Amino acid sequence: MFNVEYYCKGGIEMNNVIDVMMNRVSLRKYDERLVAKEHIDIILECAMRAPTAGNMMLYSIIKVEDQKKKDVLSKTCDNQPFIAKAPLVLIFLADYQRWYDYYIHSQVSDYCKSKGVKFEGPSEANLMLATCDAIIAAQNAVIAGEALGIGSCYIGDIMENYETHRELFNLPKWVFPVGMLCMGYYPEGYNKVKRERFDEKYIVYTDTYDESYKDNIKDCFKNIERRFNETNEFGAKNMGQVHYAIKTGAEFSKEMARSVKVALKNWNSEIIE
Amino acid sequence: MFNVEYYCKGGIEMNNVIDVMMNRVSLRKYDERLVAKEHIDIILECAMRAPTAGNMMLYSIIKVEDQKKKDVLSKTCDNQPFIAKAPLVLIFLADYQRWYDYYIHSQVSDYCKSKGVKFEGPSEANLMLATCDAIIAAQNAVIAGEALGIGSCYIGDIMENYETHRELFNLPKWVFPVGMLCMGYYPEGYNKVKRERFDEKYIVYTDTYDESYKDNIKDCFKNIERRFNETNEFGAKNMGQVHYAIKTGAEFSKEMARSVKVALKNWNSEIIE
Repeated sequence: MFNVEYYCKGGIEMNNVIDVMMNRVSLRKYDERLVAKEHIDIILECAMRAPTAGNMMLYSIIKVEDQKKKDVLSKTCDNQPFIAKAPLVLIFLADYQRWYDYYIHSQVSDYCKSKGVKFEGPSEANLMLATCDAIIAAQNAVIAGEALGIGSCYIGDIMENYETHRELFNLPKWVFPVGMLCMGYYPEGYNKVKRERFDEKYIVYTDTYDESYKDNIKDCFKNIERRFNETNEFGAKNMGQVHYAIKTGAEFSKEMARSVKVALKNWNSEIIE
Repeated sequence: MFNVEYYCKGGIEMNNVIDVMMNRVSLRKYDERLVAKEHIDIILECAMRAPTAGNMMLYSIIKVEDQKKKDVLSKTCDNQPFIAKAPLVLIFLADYQRWYDYYIHSQVSDYCKSKGVKFEGPSEANLMLATCDAIIAAQNAVIAGEALGIGSCYIGDIMENYETHRELFNLPKWVFPVGMLCMGYYPEGYNKVKRERFDEKYIVYTDTYDESYKDNIKDCFKNIERRFNETNEFGAKNMGQVHYAIKTGAEFSKEMARSVKVALKNWNSEIIE
């Protein structure tokens, strides 16, 4: 697909795997150009080559081209207008429907009866596994895009408003949208600003989980604490309170909690006749 | 970290982002060498640079060095002996504990009382969001490894036996292991065999989910169907029945369903006092 000689002649910036990952930032403002079909093809090919549990590919991808649907998403996903302007929008669906349709087509019901066992539908664990599959594929798409000069932003808010999205995209029962990517070329001269992460010692442990961060919680959260403003709009006395107010306490979060609870009801290992 | 000039002189194989993703296979047999500390550092750095919801890093990583713990994992994760032999084992945990401890430290309880609202613990949606964060980080680790000649295999079975893993790794309440990576250098002369994926037309849709694969289900599943053996050990009449028997119908799958149901009980938006 790519030619080493070509890259090494410096025709375009070299694609170095580690550099691409280390320099990636979330991009919410895109160049107006459409993403080239050749680039979309590469992004999707990399997504579909991603590791997948038992080679089952427990996901599907919806490429949203319809501007009206992008407009809806920009409202249903926590009112983020930039979604409507993204040149490329990909929804990653956790998908067990394909396999259960295959099982039904294969008379698994008869097989189970002959063995004296129950034919069970997907469980909550299957949703989790399919979510992993979908997100692994999504991250390959992110990195492939980045290597091609195409920035991206994940929209977890696609888990909100399940009923609306189910209708908008004709989703069958055992399909749930777990991630969305807005993508587009970096605008010319875009200034990447990398956000600070937690220190490695608070994220990576050896052999056992370590709760000792609790003794250094101010140090652990120092990059967050720095952003505290005493005259905040929430009437909060510290950054932890502000953060709760803008996350768990916020409307989008309550909607996501509700939406996922509704969707989870489909993933209850029900008996299929 | 890497020097373009050096790579282009052909000192070692060039790291091309797209090629690395397109040529990756799951590796279950590793060279005996330990993974170099410098390489582990790069893998973890790339993981921690991965996109994360609201920059919250809703995950932790446990590097399993203790051989006894690897031995346990090789049994609790659906009896896969190669896990015990993997030079590098990384467990990716969906983790809301860190943030809730910060909220508690920040007297969010008092804040909520002053506002007349309830202080809510993590919801099922928070587990889903944290799972996405953890897996996005894991996939960066996979790709970084691959670029360094380090192969990997995802073990979704880490979601089984929740109680055992909770005890083995001292996991607090709002931490759940969603993925594990076994990693190690490719053995010399390893012959990569890429498994066939579903055709793109059955995975990628435009603007709406498309159930028309049902009309072409034999074509959709042709790579799977090819593996059917009439004298199979399950007494199954077709490949769909075999597949159900080795997946949803299998012990590991029932255990994963049970384990996730138990873990999910912690993620019920409980009121924190």
